[in-house]
Amino acid sequence: MRKILVLFTFISLVVTVSTTAQTKTFSMEDAVIGYTKGLYPESIRGKWQRHSPYFIYKEGNAIIQLHAKNNSVEELFSLSSINKKLTAINEDTLKNLPFPQWINEHRFLLKAGQKCFIIEATNLNVPHVIELAEKDANIDFTEFDEELRIAVTNQHSLFIVSPDKRTEVASSDSDELVYGQDVSRREFGISKGTFWSPDARYLAYFVKDNSKVKQYPLVDITKREAEPDMIRYPMAGMASEQVWLGVYNIENGKHIYIEKDNAHTEQYLTNITWGPESKFVYIQVLNREQNHMKLNKYNATTGDLVKTLFEEKHEKYVEPYHALEFADQNNDSFFYQSRRNGYNHIYHYTTEGELIQQITDGPWEVTSFLGFDEKGKNIFFTSTEISPIERHTYKVNISKPNKKIQLTEKPGTHRVSLSDDGQYIFDRFQSTDVPGIMQIISTAKGKKHTIKTADNPLNDYKLGEMTIGTIKAADDSTDLYYRLIKPIDFDPEKKYPAIVYVYGGPHAQLINNTWLGGAQMWQHFMAQQGYVMLTVDNRGSANRGLEFENVIHNYCGKHEMEDQLRGIKMLQNLSYVDTSRIGVHGWSYGGFMTTSLLTNHPDVFKVGVAGGPVIDWKYYEIMYGERYMSAPDNNPNGYEATSLLKMAPKLKRKLLIIHGYIDPTVVPQHSLQFVRECIKNNIPVDYFMYPRAEHNVRGKNRIHLMQKVTDYFDDYLK
Amino acid sequence: MRKILVLFTFISLVVTVSTTAQTKTFSMEDAVIGYTKGLYPESIRGKWQRHSPYFIYKEGNAIIQLHAKNNSVEELFSLSSINKKLTAINEDTLKNLPFPQWINEHRFLLKAGQKCFIIEATNLNVPHVIELAEKDANIDFTEFDEELRIAVTNQHSLFIVSPDKRTEVASSDSDELVYGQDVSRREFGISKGTFWSPDARYLAYFVKDNSKVKQYPLVDITKREAEPDMIRYPMAGMASEQVWLGVYNIENGKHIYIEKDNAHTEQYLTNITWGPESKFVYIQVLNREQNHMKLNKYNATTGDLVKTLFEEKHEKYVEPYHALEFADQNNDSFFYQSRRNGYNHIYHYTTEGELIQQITDGPWEVTSFLGFDEKGKNIFFTSTEISPIERHTYKVNISKPNKKIQLTEKPGTHRVSLSDDGQYIFDRFQSTDVPGIMQIISTAKGKKHTIKTADNPLNDYKLGEMTIGTIKAADDSTDLYYRLIKPIDFDPEKKYPAIVYVYGGPHAQLINNTWLGGAQMWQHFMAQQGYVMLTVDNRGSANRGLEFENVIHNYCGKHEMEDQLRGIKMLQNLSYVDTSRIGVHGWSYGGFMTTSLLTNHPDVFKVGVAGGPVIDWKYYEIMYGERYMSAPDNNPNGYEATSLLKMAPKLKRKLLIIHGYIDPTVVPQHSLQFVRECIKNNIPVDYFMYPRAEHNVRGKNRIHLMQKVTDYFDDYLK
Repeated sequence: MRKILVLFTFISLVVTVSTTAQTKTFSMEDAVIGYTKGLYPESIRGKWQRHSPYFIYKEGNAIIQLHAKNNSVEELFSLSSINKKLTAINEDTLKNLPFPQWINEHRFLLKAGQKCFIIEATNLNVPHVIELAEKDANIDFTEFDEELRIAVTNQHSLFIVSPDKRTEVASSDSDELVYGQDVSRREFGISKGTFWSPDARYLAYFVKDNSKVKQYPLVDITKREAEPDMIRYPMAGMASEQVWLGVYNIENGKHIYIEKDNAHTEQYLTNITWGPESKFVYIQVLNREQNHMKLNKYNATTGDLVKTLFEEKHEKYVEPYHALEFADQNNDSFFYQSRRNGYNHIYHYTTEGELIQQITDGPWEVTSFLGFDEKGKNIFFTSTEISPIERHTYKVNISKPNKKIQLTEKPGTHRVSLSDDGQYIFDRFQSTDVPGIMQIISTAKGKKHTIKTADNPLNDYKLGEMTIGTIKAADDSTDLYYRLIKPIDFDPEKKYPAIVYVYGGPHAQLINNTWLGGAQMWQHFMAQQGYVMLTVDNRGSANRGLEFENVIHNYCGKHEMEDQLRGIKMLQNLSYVDTSRIGVHGWSYGGFMTTSLLTNHPDVFKVGVAGGPVIDWKYYEIMYGERYMSAPDNNPNGYEATSLLKMAPKLKRKLLIIHGYIDPTVVPQHSLQFVRECIKNNIPVDYFMYPRAEHNVRGKNRIHLMQKVTDYFDDYLK
Repeated sequence: MRKILVLFTFISLVVTVSTTAQTKTFSMEDAVIGYTKGLYPESIRGKWQRHSPYFIYKEGNAIIQLHAKNNSVEELFSLSSINKKLTAINEDTLKNLPFPQWINEHRFLLKAGQKCFIIEATNLNVPHVIELAEKDANIDFTEFDEELRIAVTNQHSLFIVSPDKRTEVASSDSDELVYGQDVSRREFGISKGTFWSPDARYLAYFVKDNSKVKQYPLVDITKREAEPDMIRYPMAGMASEQVWLGVYNIENGKHIYIEKDNAHTEQYLTNITWGPESKFVYIQVLNREQNHMKLNKYNATTGDLVKTLFEEKHEKYVEPYHALEFADQNNDSFFYQSRRNGYNHIYHYTTEGELIQQITDGPWEVTSFLGFDEKGKNIFFTSTEISPIERHTYKVNISKPNKKIQLTEKPGTHRVSLSDDGQYIFDRFQSTDVPGIMQIISTAKGKKHTIKTADNPLNDYKLGEMTIGTIKAADDSTDLYYRLIKPIDFDPEKKYPAIVYVYGGPHAQLINNTWLGGAQMWQHFMAQQGYVMLTVDNRGSANRGLEFENVIHNYCGKHEMEDQLRGIKMLQNLSYVDTSRIGVHGWSYGGFMTTSLLTNHPDVFKVGVAGGPVIDWKYYEIMYGERYMSAPDNNPNGYEATSLLKMAPKLKRKLLIIHGYIDPTVVPQHSLQFVRECIKNNIPVDYFMYPRAEHNVRGKNRIHLMQKVTDYFDDYLK
């Protein structure tokens, strides 16, 4: 079964997606928004109902519930059945069907605009309609004694809304102080700013003091006369956010604060976790330098530090990323994920900080902690153990961690969610040659029920031959994955231009054993246009372990470029590649890589298109930037070595830089400064701004973007 | 003498600049900053000394004075002689020689940095050194009883500085209220904000209340983190500046105010003129609608309106542009310029508003009022009487205005300044075949003394054959001037691409009988690259009279485009022009024209490069914009018809838009909105921003700009 995926240098997985009646090629619209035109494989995205064996998913205009025990399927509700109920209570009907969010086993919530409808699952009656205020956002609800409690932010303030009242929790009239929203620019796994206690009696919330953070001026040109949109953007080395945690007691209306006294140190409060008894809050506190993490346990009613359970340090960086996982049955221990031994693994700890056991181990990474079974004896997780480019799910008995059971079989990528009782997984499977199989799998017996098998939506399309394989990194020992797509109607006697599509930064992996090998359809489009398309996941990219990633530390771009040049070496050995016509394209970190490669290696690259590029890390934000580059004062050589401002005078090749005019992530200052250096030195450069784009160009406008990218290669590389 | 310039359609002035040993062509640097490389003809720019027959000019590192009576020449001072004097009083030496500004016959002022040195002309002694404060600007000095009084602004405040003290005249700490600076965005001939009375006892100054004017956010990316630079930019139809005039009495320190009570009407106070007795201030007050001007006389000690001397109205617009001219000998009458009869002419009025006499008349324009002779009997002016593309200077006896004497002879452009006593003019002359002759001419006898005859700096360069001629405008009757440059090494059997260089808006005339025909050297560079270069001064352009100009009213672009298409028709009749390869390029109004032409006439134009373009007049400022387009609410059809936003979906050809990222004149909102419309409609467009450029790209960076413009035509038109 594994045979078809023999992976070592130049002996690779070769995939030609289909063989019959292939005559069509993509339009740019197909290539970019193919999902609106039936060109993506059919899929099911659903959720397990709380405390039940029902898997809930959307099909057309209906929400379906599948009973995992007997695989019976019934309609939970449809747009029309819900609308009937809404009409009966004089509410406006819905145009699109929202996905239900389960409050408890009996009730779910449907959110439409600023209205929250509470609906009884059995009869679709609507006992409550909660109307949120304009600008209410970041909805986070819980259930207390059958009553719904919704935390919402409104501009900079925080409220709790229930069917009968709206309570102001904390109020601010300026962005200098913000309550209940995410902090630290959503790094460290932070995705929200409110945290209900399990007993729903407390609401913990982030407080972000922005008063020392400089504001970056973005400009809104849609107004009658343009207006500034000032965003708080803490740049590397500058003053940062000060963050602490408030805990609001619903019953007495009082607040206590955690780590407020230390907020001036600009430390990071990450992975907020309530203890199951609602008495303790656990925080993985990281210093601003990001090299020292303390797992702290706080008293939720006093705010006092109870204990630092343990600490982690690293000379490069520590990146806490995962909340603690408590099994329902056990208040005294939790599961913790750490890369302390080089790969992300699961550790079992007592709530006093004693290590009970390391649960997983090996030169591979746990990529997802899925949950527990009902008795809390087994845990489920997804990992890269089979291959860095595959994902499989495992069950492991906590007391016998050496014996784990692989629940997913077919080679490829299994995206899995676990039922609340741990008895079933929903497996959304794809591989390079399987467009999609959606199954319910029993975790006890491995019994499988297939809900859907997707057809190949590209059956009629000519696709270039795709190869996934490995080459050696610049260290001559590490395997790097690459994906190569040959032009359609391939003629080995011809010489083709080639384009490297690159990202190269941490937290991303572009090559997977999944549908199209993880490539955007645009890459296949370009192969249809006669380009050889190559992507290499260099060192620094995701899911390959700590050392693979942190090699980039303090000199972002250096090793990544060296690895990319190994990909180029491979291209140069391919007789059908015209090595005088190699282009490079990437966005964000990939824009940084594109500009780095083009300016440092004009002998290799003829044309580049860099989108939203980091140009000098000193203009990037603190949280991500200082992790990989330290603060400028602590790493002057690294900043100098990697800055592309100094490379502008050396630009010799055609470069198009594209940037969102209101990019709040890689702010426009980056590319504008690069262009300015080019002008100062009389170096030709091309530039384009998307006036209403943020860090990328999405939706329909992306067709325009990719046409622009394509035109540039067609004009200067083809 | 006139024979070589027979001007009617297709029978034209053909100029080939030189005929010997032409082998060189321009580099882009030559074409753009040729003035730094000796490629511009030598010239003399000087000034007449006050109340004396000395003409003062710079030669190398010395200031020369030429005695007009006997043409003797001596050094007034040199950099080294001044530096010797400065060293003697322990002042830093100067690096560059400033031009002297005469305080009276005996003393002049040299300004270097923030220091003003008062220097005695005879011995170069330095009796006073005035050190200005940091940010002192808008220096405006006068002399009172041998003492210097300097008005300066500092940020928003106004001061008077003399050798021994600094007096705060009016103070403001925000740009909501600004003292002593120009107003109305320097329209209506406004160039400054302080006005000394002739007796130096009063300082009149503009007060500008910006509080209702919206701020446009420009962004300064040179800061560690980018910062907003908020400029007051009143857009068409929106709230405008409120302006009044203060008059400060130096002796008692009191202020009176003129037209403060009417400031809310947002009227324009233009062409501030002191009466010679320092008792009255004359203001040409224009309503916001710009169709009704009152020439008002105010009491300078009370601020009261004495009398409205006369009024001018026009259904399209009135544009007062010239201050009153008083002869030294006559406090009771003045000379006034108006286009009331269709062309700019000089009128003689009493200070009671009675018309004494119209001095000049005819279907041509007075372009410059030069001054009077000593007794105030003759006035001197420059006009277009000989030809719209020539400038000649005349002397006319006020009492016999029909008999005027032409002082300049050679056909071409005479740039003239008059000595204080009216006895001499300095004539800086150029024509298409004369690089430059600088002469002193006696106004009584016409005696000429040549100071310098410039050599042809392009003797060694190949230049394309240049033709200046006329074609008929789209009204089939008006003559329009065009300039056509053929490619070098011209072969009539070949087919060449052609580029139209266009401006097209009011207050500019691109074609003159002057060196290179008024063309930038870049146009000749492009002819060297094999392009046919055409420019047409369409209706709406300058120096052709009121109706020629105001035809554009309320529908900017409409008639201008029609006229430009007549130029295209001419190109289409030239056998050597490849009519499938016609490009267009222009900046500002010319960027508007370029975009208008390319979107409206894709059948004609293949490629366009539009710089700093107006895209929709509603984003342009009130003063210029409402003159030509009215306010949006008063001219909705005109705004709709001329807006290029609606044309973006119709763009079919290659268009590169270039804009200064901090353009305070045509703000970036214009081009960004156009690009946005292109994106919305999936229309390819190219865009480039100069991160530190304002309304144009100047200095060395202009080489980069013109290379970019050229590359675009080379890539897509050649």
